[in-house]
Amino acid sequence: MKQFNVALLGASGAVGKEILKVLEERDFPIAKLKLLSSARSAGKTIKAFHRELVFEEINENSFKGIDIVLSAVANVHAKKWIPVALKSGAIVIDNSSAFRNESAVPLVIPQINGRDIFKHEGLIANPNCATIIALMAIAPLHEYALAKRIIISTYQAVSGAGLQGMEELESQMHSIIQHEPIEISQFPYQIANNLIPQIGNFNEDGYSEEEMKLQFEGRKILHHDDLKISCTCVRVPVMRSHSESITVEFENEMNANIAKKILSEAPGVKIVDNLDLQQYPMPIDTSDQDKIFVGRIRNDISTDKNSISFWCCGDQLRKGAATNAVEIAERLI
Amino acid sequence: MKQFNVALLGASGAVGKEILKVLEERDFPIAKLKLLSSARSAGKTIKAFHRELVFEEINENSFKGIDIVLSAVANVHAKKWIPVALKSGAIVIDNSSAFRNESAVPLVIPQINGRDIFKHEGLIANPNCATIIALMAIAPLHEYALAKRIIISTYQAVSGAGLQGMEELESQMHSIIQHEPIEISQFPYQIANNLIPQIGNFNEDGYSEEEMKLQFEGRKILHHDDLKISCTCVRVPVMRSHSESITVEFENEMNANIAKKILSEAPGVKIVDNLDLQQYPMPIDTSDQDKIFVGRIRNDISTDKNSISFWCCGDQLRKGAATNAVEIAERLI
Repeated sequence: MKQFNVALLGASGAVGKEILKVLEERDFPIAKLKLLSSARSAGKTIKAFHRELVFEEINENSFKGIDIVLSAVANVHAKKWIPVALKSGAIVIDNSSAFRNESAVPLVIPQINGRDIFKHEGLIANPNCATIIALMAIAPLHEYALAKRIIISTYQAVSGAGLQGMEELESQMHSIIQHEPIEISQFPYQIANNLIPQIGNFNEDGYSEEEMKLQFEGRKILHHDDLKISCTCVRVPVMRSHSESITVEFENEMNANIAKKILSEAPGVKIVDNLDLQQYPMPIDTSDQDKIFVGRIRNDISTDKNSISFWCCGDQLRKGAATNAVEIAERLI
Repeated sequence: MKQFNVALLGASGAVGKEILKVLEERDFPIAKLKLLSSARSAGKTIKAFHRELVFEEINENSFKGIDIVLSAVANVHAKKWIPVALKSGAIVIDNSSAFRNESAVPLVIPQINGRDIFKHEGLIANPNCATIIALMAIAPLHEYALAKRIIISTYQAVSGAGLQGMEELESQMHSIIQHEPIEISQFPYQIANNLIPQIGNFNEDGYSEEEMKLQFEGRKILHHDDLKISCTCVRVPVMRSHSESITVEFENEMNANIAKKILSEAPGVKIVDNLDLQQYPMPIDTSDQDKIFVGRIRNDISTDKNSISFWCCGDQLRKGAATNAVEIAERLI
């Protein structure tokens, strides 16, 4: 089997570390692996593939001879380094939102629009975590009955703000328990024991960047330009599984029973929905796993028009980021 | 001014203690105050009205000479003791859900349907906390444009499970920080760092009791039997302010600007909605206050039909329970 030279850009971050774990778990066919980082992390080591790997500081020559780049850096760094990687001939799978809007850049969830991967011109974008988690459940239903209107309220984990977001929640919990002053740096306000109804900046219609991603990315991934998604994105004091309360109205026949049947056969989805046994998806049960968990599937009682509601959870760092990126790479090769 | 003999039933619970605080703050005209409790709390004292008050164990004669009973006990105790209080001639304001469905029992949010108070036959019910918080914002909009369909996702604080719920969150946070095993008693699962999409038992349509209260109570309070409310109720690791993500479709003209104007004049509501300054309601800012805070008011982009979305927060123990009950008593006298 062919092996590939792989570079992991942003290897020391929360998503970068998770990609490394997923590559190892899934036995990705790697010839050479480069862990690229900022000067700050360069020289540090990490255990993976049964040895100590060293982070290298990224430079103009880092991508020479590299076949595949998995990028997990913020937009500003993605904009700087991805063109360098592309120029040196690598194929790049990017977790940032920097290039998702570009028409030449496929935006892919392999279980949904895997074929779009092969339209790439060197760069493939990984969707936003909240988009991946919602669409994994919505797409199979949409294929059956054509989704026309979607209303989502999210409950998003602090891991969406990286390792520092997770450290901040833990440190704030510590401060509350110890009755010490709370320090805030990653989020606009205290997140422990609180909810923040803002993720990203707001547009003039009053929607946040994160909220608009659901609609823009949903349309691109489902190839459905008329899809209407209205979303309220909320940061919650949970470590790393995002949850979403979703209502979907369909053009064609849909109800809770049909949805349960479709989702029970959907790839990458697991139904947890036994109300008699108080079973439904929860962040503590769904972290560190690759599936999207769906439950509370029921008819939407606010209308009689082919509308259902459900609740889903998924690990923001795994299927919401790292796993999806590696799955794209697997399809690619 | 006339003064009243008042009994507080369930005085040692989270809502009971809050009622005592509200009575004192608002200088309710009390002649005699009886704090009634179970045998377990009887003999204990609490500071209020500048003295030590003693909890008395409730018995068949507790309500003799009492004009007004404020009840903050669970359904099972409400069903046992409220008939006793009514028989002895007291007027009862009940926080439990035991009698809310009965047609002879007004269900009242004074700012919305205050006049219903006077239809009482001795007993007046206080609505559910999540209902009060949502309707304080929805009712003035409904009066203007007739609400027809409402979709709500809640983010409900642990205080909804009383003092023990609050203690459980605190103790679980402690255990997580100390890496000790987590103890669970008040909620079906761990609540610290988690979300539980269940409050109350489920009906056969897959909705929880808490979710159905929104629709049933909303219809009764707004006198609008066709109102359709579909709700997802979720317990979150927050101490005492409930938050709700709400989308409302109206029969008649409505948009974000109209909604902001109406809500800026609505009694008991405060708008916190300046996105440039990152201002929106949050649990940490809205606890221990009587107003309902509304923000993120915007047009619902999933439809072009007179639909808006917003986010609201309110203290579950204050306006969600104690304050509303005392406001009913104030109107009554």
